[in-house]
Amino acid sequence: MSQTPDSVVRTYIQQHRAAFLDDLAEWLRIPSVSAQPDHAADVRRSADWLAAKLTETGFPTAEVWPTPGAPAVYAEWPSDDPQAPTVLVYGHHDVQPAAREDGWDSDPFAPEIRGNRLYARGAADDKGQVFFHTLGVRAHLAATGRTAPAVHLKLLIEGEEESGSPHFRALVEQHAERLAADAVIVSDTGMWSEDTPTVCTGMRGLAECEIRLYGPDQDIHSGSFGGAVPNPATAAARLVAALHDEHARVAIPGFYDGVVELTDRERALFAELPFDEEQWLRTARSHATRGESGFTTLERVWARPTAEVNGIGGGYQGPGSKTIIPASAMVKLSFRLVAGQDPDHVEKAVRAWAERQVPAGIRCELTFSGATRPCLTPLDHPALQSVVRAMGRAFGETVRFTREGGSGPAADLQDVLGAPVLFLGISVPSDGWHAPNEKVELDLLLKGVETTAYLWGDLAEHWRHAP
Amino acid sequence: MSQTPDSVVRTYIQQHRAAFLDDLAEWLRIPSVSAQPDHAADVRRSADWLAAKLTETGFPTAEVWPTPGAPAVYAEWPSDDPQAPTVLVYGHHDVQPAAREDGWDSDPFAPEIRGNRLYARGAADDKGQVFFHTLGVRAHLAATGRTAPAVHLKLLIEGEEESGSPHFRALVEQHAERLAADAVIVSDTGMWSEDTPTVCTGMRGLAECEIRLYGPDQDIHSGSFGGAVPNPATAAARLVAALHDEHARVAIPGFYDGVVELTDRERALFAELPFDEEQWLRTARSHATRGESGFTTLERVWARPTAEVNGIGGGYQGPGSKTIIPASAMVKLSFRLVAGQDPDHVEKAVRAWAERQVPAGIRCELTFSGATRPCLTPLDHPALQSVVRAMGRAFGETVRFTREGGSGPAADLQDVLGAPVLFLGISVPSDGWHAPNEKVELDLLLKGVETTAYLWGDLAEHWRHAP
Repeated sequence: MSQTPDSVVRTYIQQHRAAFLDDLAEWLRIPSVSAQPDHAADVRRSADWLAAKLTETGFPTAEVWPTPGAPAVYAEWPSDDPQAPTVLVYGHHDVQPAAREDGWDSDPFAPEIRGNRLYARGAADDKGQVFFHTLGVRAHLAATGRTAPAVHLKLLIEGEEESGSPHFRALVEQHAERLAADAVIVSDTGMWSEDTPTVCTGMRGLAECEIRLYGPDQDIHSGSFGGAVPNPATAAARLVAALHDEHARVAIPGFYDGVVELTDRERALFAELPFDEEQWLRTARSHATRGESGFTTLERVWARPTAEVNGIGGGYQGPGSKTIIPASAMVKLSFRLVAGQDPDHVEKAVRAWAERQVPAGIRCELTFSGATRPCLTPLDHPALQSVVRAMGRAFGETVRFTREGGSGPAADLQDVLGAPVLFLGISVPSDGWHAPNEKVELDLLLKGVETTAYLWGDLAEHWRHAP
Repeated sequence: MSQTPDSVVRTYIQQHRAAFLDDLAEWLRIPSVSAQPDHAADVRRSADWLAAKLTETGFPTAEVWPTPGAPAVYAEWPSDDPQAPTVLVYGHHDVQPAAREDGWDSDPFAPEIRGNRLYARGAADDKGQVFFHTLGVRAHLAATGRTAPAVHLKLLIEGEEESGSPHFRALVEQHAERLAADAVIVSDTGMWSEDTPTVCTGMRGLAECEIRLYGPDQDIHSGSFGGAVPNPATAAARLVAALHDEHARVAIPGFYDGVVELTDRERALFAELPFDEEQWLRTARSHATRGESGFTTLERVWARPTAEVNGIGGGYQGPGSKTIIPASAMVKLSFRLVAGQDPDHVEKAVRAWAERQVPAGIRCELTFSGATRPCLTPLDHPALQSVVRAMGRAFGETVRFTREGGSGPAADLQDVLGAPVLFLGISVPSDGWHAPNEKVELDLLLKGVETTAYLWGDLAEHWRHAP
C-alpha cells in the first residue's frame, strides 16, 4: 500500500493552521441561527461566505442553493481519475440559538481561543466539522502533488438542520442527479471521547405518531357517570402501558419485523468501549437504566428500536382538582428504528395495534409524521474501512466503532441517492452541543483535517470503479 | 295512623301559591354566584334575604352565619313536643354562574314563568328546593292546627356549595352543638323523572389524589437516551393502566375493604326503575357503557366505588413533535367511595400500591385532598320510611329508590353530627342544573311543599324519642 508520508501532511497542516483558524473564526462570527427569523439574513450571509471560501479553496463549482427556507451550499471538485469513486460530504452551516446570558463565559458569536479550545456557537456543531474539509483537501493535494482530489468530491452543507431540515429532502430530490454519489460522509457527529477515536457506523430512524382519543362529547361529571362509561385518559394510558411487555420489549405485533440483529462481533466491539454507566447516567440526567432485557445500555440506544412517549395529556391539569371524565386525551409517541425496519410498515403495525387496544365508545385518531429511515454501514464496507484507516493514521490509535441513537437528515441522502452513509466526526461529548460554552478541541479539529487528507487517497486506492 | 286530611294541605298550598312564587322570584333575582368575587355582596344579600324570610315564615331563630368566605343561614323552630325528633334540613343559597349569552332564552336572574315552569338560575339548584320548606312548614301548621312544628326543625343553608364548600366542615364543627339532629334531610338532589317519584338513599364519597412522577432532571433527547432510561410519562400511564383489572374492577389491593355490597332487594329496586340505556348515554354524552363486570349501569354509578382519571399530563403537548423523554408527568385521580369505605384506608392502599408500581429511577409523590365520606341510609330506617310515605301521599304514586353517584358536603353533616342523611328533592334531570335555561317544574315544586307538609307529622308519629 503506497502512502503519502504522513509527515508531509502534518507539516502542511501546521503551516496553514493559523490562517485556517482565522477563517473559521470569521465564519463563526456570523450568527446563522436558522430557528430565529431575525437571523434569516445571517444564515444567507453564512451560505455566501462558505461558497466564496470553497471557491477560494479550489472547488471549481461552489453554489448557494435556495430553498423555501434557508439556503444550502453545494460544491463540487471532480477527480482527474474517471474511475475514482464519488463522495458527498454532508454538514450544515446553521447553528443553534445562543445568548451570552444563557451562561456563556464569552460572546457566543465572538470566537475565543482559551487554552487548546475554540469557544463559539457552531465551533463543533457544525461549522468546525464542515470546515476541516477545506484544509483537508488542500493538504491531500499538497502531499500527493495532485491538482484535483483522488475522489470526485462533493459537499452539501445545509442551512436548516437546527430547524428540523424542513426542506432538505425536497432539495436532495430536486438535485438528485448532481448529488449522485457512491458514498455519503456525514461530518456532523462525534467520537466516543478525546482518548478513544471512533467511527459511527449508523444512526437510528424515526417514526412519529400522535394519537388522539375521544370519549364523551364534552367533559362529564365523574360522580354522575364515573364507573359506567369509558374514560379516554384511561384509554390513552392503557395504550401507552401496552406499548411494552414485561421485558421492556415493544409489544406491537410486527414492530420488530426485519430488524437487523447485532452480530456477536458488533456486540464485542461495543463492549470494548470504556463505558462507565454512572458517568452515562449523569449525562442522561437520569437515575436508573431501564430497557429491553438482554441488551446493554449502549446496545439499547444504538442498535435497538424503541417506542417512547414524548408527551401525554388529557383532562384537567391545572392546580387543585376537577372531578371530570375528560372528553379527550392525547399521546405523542416516537419510535426509533434500526436497520431493516421500514417506517411505513411500522406505521401499519401501530395503526392495527392501536385500533385493537381501544375500547368501545372511544374513538381513536392516529397521525404519523417525521418518518426518517435508519442508516447502517456494514463493518466490512470498503469505504468504512478507508475511514477507519485514515482516522487511525491521524490519531495513531485503534479506531473503535459506535453508532448514533438519534436520527438525522443524512437518512434522506441514503434514501434518495441510494448511497451508504458513513460518519466522520471529531467532536466529543464535552463540546456542549446546543449548550452554553460550546467549544471544539483544536487538537481534534486538526486531526479531522489530517484524517480527510489521508481519506481521499485511501478511498480511491481501495474502492475504484471498474474501468 | 291519624292523618291530617290531605285536602286541607292542598287547599292551603293553592291559596298561598302565588305569594310563594312571588317570594321565590324575588330571591332568584339576587345573583348569588359564590364562584365570582364580584358577586360576593349578592351572596351576602341572598343570605340576609333568606334569614328575613325565615323569620317572616315563623322561625323564632334565623341567623346569618359568617364564614371566611360566603355566609350561611341558620334557622331553628323547636317543637312544642320535647320527645319529638330533631331534623336538620340542608340546602344552599348560592348559585352557579350564568349569563344570557351562554344560551339562555331569558335573563337568568329575571325569573320568568313560561307554561308550567319557572326559569331562572337557582330555580332548581337550589333556591327552589330550599324554598319549598317555607310554605311546607306553614301548611303543616295550618293543617294540624299546631303553633310549632311536630319536629324540632333546623335549617342550615350554606353559601359556598357551588364553590366546593371550602368552609362548610369547619362551620359545622364550630356549631356542632346547635346543629345536633337525629336526622339530616338534604334538599339538593332530584328524582328519577317527572313520572317516577323517588327518594335518594345515599351518595358516594370521594378521595382525590394527584400523583407526580419524576424521571430525568430535565427533558432529555429521546434519540440519545431513548430505550435505556425510564420515562416518567410511561410510568404514569402504566400506573393508570394498573388501576383496573380486565373486569374493570379497581385492582388496588385493599381498595374494596369494607364495601357494603348491594342486597338482592336493593338490586331489585334499582331494576324496577324505567332505565333506558340509550337515553342515559345521551345524558352522559357518551358512546358506550363500560364498567365493573357483574353490575348494571345504575349499580355502577350509584353503588360501586371507582377509580377515575380526571387529568393526565407530561412532556410536550403542543403542536408538532418534540423528541424528548420528559422530566416529569402527572396524574389526577379521583376515587368514588361507597358505604363501608374509609377515605384514610383508601389513601393508605393507594400509596402502598403506587410505590410498588413505579420503576427504579422514577420518583413518585402522592398528594391527597378532598376526602368526603359516603352516605347510605338503610331502606328500613324509620326516617326514610316517613319520607317515602309523605312523598307517596303528595305524589299519589309508588315512591322508588335511587342513589346519587356524586359526593357532597352533606357527608360532613353525617360525620360531624353523627346523624343519618336523607334526601328529599323534587328536581328532575331536565331541570338543567349548571346549564342555560335552568328551570323548575311548578307542579313538582308544589309537591315538594306538600311532601314536607306531611313529613314532619309522620316523622314525629313514627320516630319519637322515648319519654
